Amino acid sequence: MFEVPKAEYEARLKALRGFMDEQNVKGFLLTNGNWFSYFTGFFYLVTERPAAMAITSDRIDFFGPVMEAAHLKTQTSLVDSVATYPDYPGETHPAKLFAKWLKGLKVGNKVGTDGATSFAGYWGYKGPKWADLLPEVKFVPVGDLLYPMRQVKSVNEQRLIRESIRWGDVAHRLLQKYTEPGLYDFEIAARASLEASMRAKLALGPRFKASRWGLVPVHAGFRGQVGEHSVFPHSISIERKIGRGDVLGSGASADIAGYNSEVERNMFVGKPDKKAERYHKMALKMQDAALEALRPGGKCSDVDRAVRKFAKGEGLTGYLLHHSGHSIGLEGHEAPFLDVGDDTQVKPGMVFTVEPGVYVPKLGGFRHSDTVLVRSDSIEVMTHYLRDTKSLTVGV
Amino acid sequence: MFEVPKAEYEARLKALRGFMDEQNVKGFLLTNGNWFSYFTGFFYLVTERPAAMAITSDRIDFFGPVMEAAHLKTQTSLVDSVATYPDYPGETHPAKLFAKWLKGLKVGNKVGTDGATSFAGYWGYKGPKWADLLPEVKFVPVGDLLYPMRQVKSVNEQRLIRESIRWGDVAHRLLQKYTEPGLYDFEIAARASLEASMRAKLALGPRFKASRWGLVPVHAGFRGQVGEHSVFPHSISIERKIGRGDVLGSGASADIAGYNSEVERNMFVGKPDKKAERYHKMALKMQDAALEALRPGGKCSDVDRAVRKFAKGEGLTGYLLHHSGHSIGLEGHEAPFLDVGDDTQVKPGMVFTVEPGVYVPKLGGFRHSDTVLVRSDSIEVMTHYLRDTKSLTVGV
Repeated sequence: MFEVPKAEYEARLKALRGFMDEQNVKGFLLTNGNWFSYFTGFFYLVTERPAAMAITSDRIDFFGPVMEAAHLKTQTSLVDSVATYPDYPGETHPAKLFAKWLKGLKVGNKVGTDGATSFAGYWGYKGPKWADLLPEVKFVPVGDLLYPMRQVKSVNEQRLIRESIRWGDVAHRLLQKYTEPGLYDFEIAARASLEASMRAKLALGPRFKASRWGLVPVHAGFRGQVGEHSVFPHSISIERKIGRGDVLGSGASADIAGYNSEVERNMFVGKPDKKAERYHKMALKMQDAALEALRPGGKCSDVDRAVRKFAKGEGLTGYLLHHSGHSIGLEGHEAPFLDVGDDTQVKPGMVFTVEPGVYVPKLGGFRHSDTVLVRSDSIEVMTHYLRDTKSLTVGV
Repeated sequence: MFEVPKAEYEARLKALRGFMDEQNVKGFLLTNGNWFSYFTGFFYLVTERPAAMAITSDRIDFFGPVMEAAHLKTQTSLVDSVATYPDYPGETHPAKLFAKWLKGLKVGNKVGTDGATSFAGYWGYKGPKWADLLPEVKFVPVGDLLYPMRQVKSVNEQRLIRESIRWGDVAHRLLQKYTEPGLYDFEIAARASLEASMRAKLALGPRFKASRWGLVPVHAGFRGQVGEHSVFPHSISIERKIGRGDVLGSGASADIAGYNSEVERNMFVGKPDKKAERYHKMALKMQDAALEALRPGGKCSDVDRAVRKFAKGEGLTGYLLHHSGHSIGLEGHEAPFLDVGDDTQVKPGMVFTVEPGVYVPKLGGFRHSDTVLVRSDSIEVMTHYLRDTKSLTVGV
């Protein structure tokens, strides 16, 4: 089954608990939903309603809205107690009930946190700082200890990301198959995404389902990166239909037990002109330069530096609009980043997207993204979608 | 056209600037993307990359990643200058460049903020507090002044929400049409959402496009609220196909110039048994009680209190899992909330979802959500989808 086995959650918790003595705290207080998923397998729709998890040496206690209590229990058996409040803002503000709850736990007066000092001000939430509610408790930010746990992916996580790639690949193949002039990008995207999701469900069997909300668990699309909008790396949408001569930016992923992957390509609607073809080839060479520079023991910044060096040599510096990639896993973007300013050491088990791009005004944006696993002595490009200009040309 | 006219942005900015004297500040510093959209019409994909907007008496200055510079200019003409940084984390941390940028503006040493004290720790972002970078600047949180601006919807905003309802309604009708036993909920959802989006594009014309990223601009679905999962108000997904006898929870919305609406219904696959039918009727009566209690000049809490009173009278108290509704507009959930703890005065122009629910273990969740406009002397239920049990029964 494509899920994180219970033993892995236990190993993660053991590692977390190992930090307790080191930090001289009796427990950790987590309020970011990604940590709930990471340590217990509980996924939920984050809203304005505060939620918290306290992990101590022998227990996990959860505090959250009553609407999530039964939902939590269907997803994880690792949580020992669930304390609830009716809703936000409530007759008593949930932050006050939280303070009372935390005092009742045996976490003592020094608690490790992921860096938060209050609940996040999301979707209309307003609330006090924890320090004002619990002046006697010292909240120690230990995010710099916690976050690296997620940076090196376990064998199980690698397997889930690999499966995500498999279905992203299927979705992207369907996207390419259905791409033709005269269609709206979202129409091709929805058709390919639905078909890929149905195939995934058929193949992965009765227990497969999305962990995060979205229309379908497997998706591919263009996000508006069509023609003159392909020069915007995050275009969101475009008003018009796809037409002959358009440079397209496309991408795909799949939610496999909450894990993500990324494959992004260009497509060309009709044979691209010489200039577009030249920049596309250049973008591929630039990606090659990035892949060559990514190695265990190196630094993340090495990769982006190699890209910038390549770009400078080819006179492309003015066409770069972003760094060379990011980590990926439970979140779509994670640290460390393949960025000149990120000197994090590249370690076996890390998974990166490698995706430098060249954005030429009035011509198009040229970027491929591949998902890459760092091994002990090399790297493995896990995505294997075709990348040459001819293979990515449609409608001819 | 379905967009916010420039005159309305100017009116919003005028109102904002009116607070400057009152607060004795020379400008406002905003870092939440919703404010960029609200004051200038700029929508973008929020990532780990910091972004900020400074609004002073006669200028709007933007600071953000270089990848958004040209993108911003295609969406708004209200921004006077765009300062950029290459990417996050960068050779110089963007927060440091931000500090330099802010010092270069004529905002003085006292700046109003939406409450933030640093950039949000999203998708792997880490950075210093602004106070540490700019000890001489006093950041004055004025979110309590700013946020109410968005709570009363202008005539234009009401028109956009009404149009969102129109297409949510179409999507939900298609969803109902396609719902039958033996299908996965996401398959029905994707089919209905694509078809409704195509119809919307055809009707709304060449300039219509989504403002926020999603597979399609109009969507309807079940979010996993199928049978035994319908008792989870935020179920996310379910493993199995829809079957005969299932109680379903459904919903629809559309992104019209960034504005949202909400229609949610139950559906019954095959004639529901007596018990399910009784609870469904009860949930409708409870919603009626909420609608009766919602009135201009009243309090938000009145509505939730009326619902609780009704529930108590019918012995349903133990089946309530959330309050009676929330405001809606640029965000899917906004304050104020129809909650016993929210004594905000109900004002003409506010738009609420009214959606108390009854969740009966082992039987199903019963909830309808309608989007309601508060008028000067009454309320208007803007959604008008059929609500009786028979009309919502499919597969018979």
